[in-house]
Amino acid sequence: MQTEMRRIVLARRPEGAPTAEDFRLETVAMPVPGPGEVLVRILYLSLDPYMRGRMNDAKSYAEPVAVGAPMGGGCVARVEVSNAPDFAPGDIVTGMMGWASHWVADAEGLQTLDPDAAPISTALGVLGMPGLTAWVGLNEYGRPKEGETLVVSAATGAVGSVVGQLGRIYGLRVVGVAGGAEKCAYAVDTLGFDACVDHRAAADARALRQALSAACPAGVDIYYENVGGKTLEAVLPLMNVGGRVPVCGMIAWYNSGGPIAAVSQGSDLLPKLWRTILVNRLSVNGFIIFDHFHRYPEFAKEVGGYLRDGKLSYREDVAEGLESAPDAFMAMLKGGNFGKQLVKVSEPG
Amino acid sequence: MQTEMRRIVLARRPEGAPTAEDFRLETVAMPVPGPGEVLVRILYLSLDPYMRGRMNDAKSYAEPVAVGAPMGGGCVARVEVSNAPDFAPGDIVTGMMGWASHWVADAEGLQTLDPDAAPISTALGVLGMPGLTAWVGLNEYGRPKEGETLVVSAATGAVGSVVGQLGRIYGLRVVGVAGGAEKCAYAVDTLGFDACVDHRAAADARALRQALSAACPAGVDIYYENVGGKTLEAVLPLMNVGGRVPVCGMIAWYNSGGPIAAVSQGSDLLPKLWRTILVNRLSVNGFIIFDHFHRYPEFAKEVGGYLRDGKLSYREDVAEGLESAPDAFMAMLKGGNFGKQLVKVSEPG
Repeated sequence: MQTEMRRIVLARRPEGAPTAEDFRLETVAMPVPGPGEVLVRILYLSLDPYMRGRMNDAKSYAEPVAVGAPMGGGCVARVEVSNAPDFAPGDIVTGMMGWASHWVADAEGLQTLDPDAAPISTALGVLGMPGLTAWVGLNEYGRPKEGETLVVSAATGAVGSVVGQLGRIYGLRVVGVAGGAEKCAYAVDTLGFDACVDHRAAADARALRQALSAACPAGVDIYYENVGGKTLEAVLPLMNVGGRVPVCGMIAWYNSGGPIAAVSQGSDLLPKLWRTILVNRLSVNGFIIFDHFHRYPEFAKEVGGYLRDGKLSYREDVAEGLESAPDAFMAMLKGGNFGKQLVKVSEPG
Repeated sequence: MQTEMRRIVLARRPEGAPTAEDFRLETVAMPVPGPGEVLVRILYLSLDPYMRGRMNDAKSYAEPVAVGAPMGGGCVARVEVSNAPDFAPGDIVTGMMGWASHWVADAEGLQTLDPDAAPISTALGVLGMPGLTAWVGLNEYGRPKEGETLVVSAATGAVGSVVGQLGRIYGLRVVGVAGGAEKCAYAVDTLGFDACVDHRAAADARALRQALSAACPAGVDIYYENVGGKTLEAVLPLMNVGGRVPVCGMIAWYNSGGPIAAVSQGSDLLPKLWRTILVNRLSVNGFIIFDHFHRYPEFAKEVGGYLRDGKLSYREDVAEGLESAPDAFMAMLKGGNFGKQLVKVSEPG
């Protein structure tokens, strides 16, 4: 039995985009589980944009990570030692843990996975929090109707790829926004989107809007918002009367420090946005998946069915080894990943 | 019988705030009603902020007024000549007409008023479109719950005063924002608001926010938005998780020409707003009362009852004579009115 474990802690709070110096890899004594707890060995760690917010010392939907504390995150892990009746060594589980080789977890926060039902890593992607986020946001706040047009940003990401594929299943015209020709080709050819616009090929919000307008001849009924920034500015004027904007994320702005970086049109954007909300009677709803975990069974039944029936594709971008997590995370915030970003921390066997 | 009528037309499109030269008073031949039409003499003309939008040649929720055409508006009028079976000379009616001494109206767009049920001018205020706007916005998009805190801007205006009084009737803590000590005293002493903050006494959005924060010790659950600008900037950071923002107007920005005037914090406001929507899971809904006219009977039953029972106060700011309409309108856009702005065009008798 190992006597030490490795973990990555927040070394200091980033100013703007995180750098390698904001993280520290530590080796510490292997923790011992108390009553009702289990010691697990982490197999897969999920890297998600919301983690950037937790690195700031600011009120947000998730508590800030303390400086010196390990970065948190959703994981798939193997139970090594169990002091809880429902878990035994060798069980594969998922839950909130952290950037580490091992973790002591309260058994109440864990769920057992059946490795024969679906690849275990999907518990962090299409069948996990990102998939649930896609399904809840699209259905509850997007209120899709057959024949409508859906635009989704970060279209090939863990959330966006599910949003768009669900949109197709529901009979919508689906237009993605993604960074680069390769991702756009994947969205159309593999995910089945009707079109995908490359935001890197557009010099500014105006050019992006023109490309989107051509791809959305009947306007936009739902904009599933993951990014903010230039894409938000491009899409809003295309919204139809009665349009819906589920606000799931704003990755383009996550790295902003104190004064958030100016967007291309400068200070007149808020009045323009507000006017569009009013004139086009938009319904803009922010949501956080933590408020919707109770809908997991309903989601798993529907979306698990699509996955089994071959109606949903997914793609993973797997970094190897715990020590690769900071680089993979920093790259993801800049759109460097292609598919759901995971870190493979150890082998299941 | 008079052979001429007077009307005020849009002389040219304003740049920014309208000026006297943007309007022109004309005398034209008295029109003759066709089949199904009535000729009315206008008694009261309603002046409303949305009219500013119609002076621009831009897509909005109401069609632009053509240059040279009379300004439109809701009116209370007396039927002089009727070619419609349901109307007779002497009837008092209300409907969409214009800035004029007389009007030929399609009978289908008119409703008869009972002068004994309520003062006829209330059909343009508390029992008319502003009252319906208050009631629909608060109930459908504000979704009030007893004990919550409601902030309403333009608090003593035609809409805001009804929003706040309904909030009190529904058991909410109601905090107004208004311009000047006199209006604030009226909101508290006459309308029964719990508090009212004077935005003119606040040097900037930050100072306004501090004053509002003191008046809202449990945060803000509903912000009924009529104004945009500094007040929006002040209120948003005070919103509680799950808060609702019915967006009814943005009078602070109505006069903006091409590039809309910068607000105090400059270009970082949109990302801040978007972050607040996301982190606090806000529900922001623009709405236009034209979509909700079918709810008028339900509204009239409830709110008419409050008025008869003495639970609702209202106040009118009446300009005398058609020729006073442009000045009264321009003053209203700057908050110069105190109560529902009307123009008394002629005597009922």
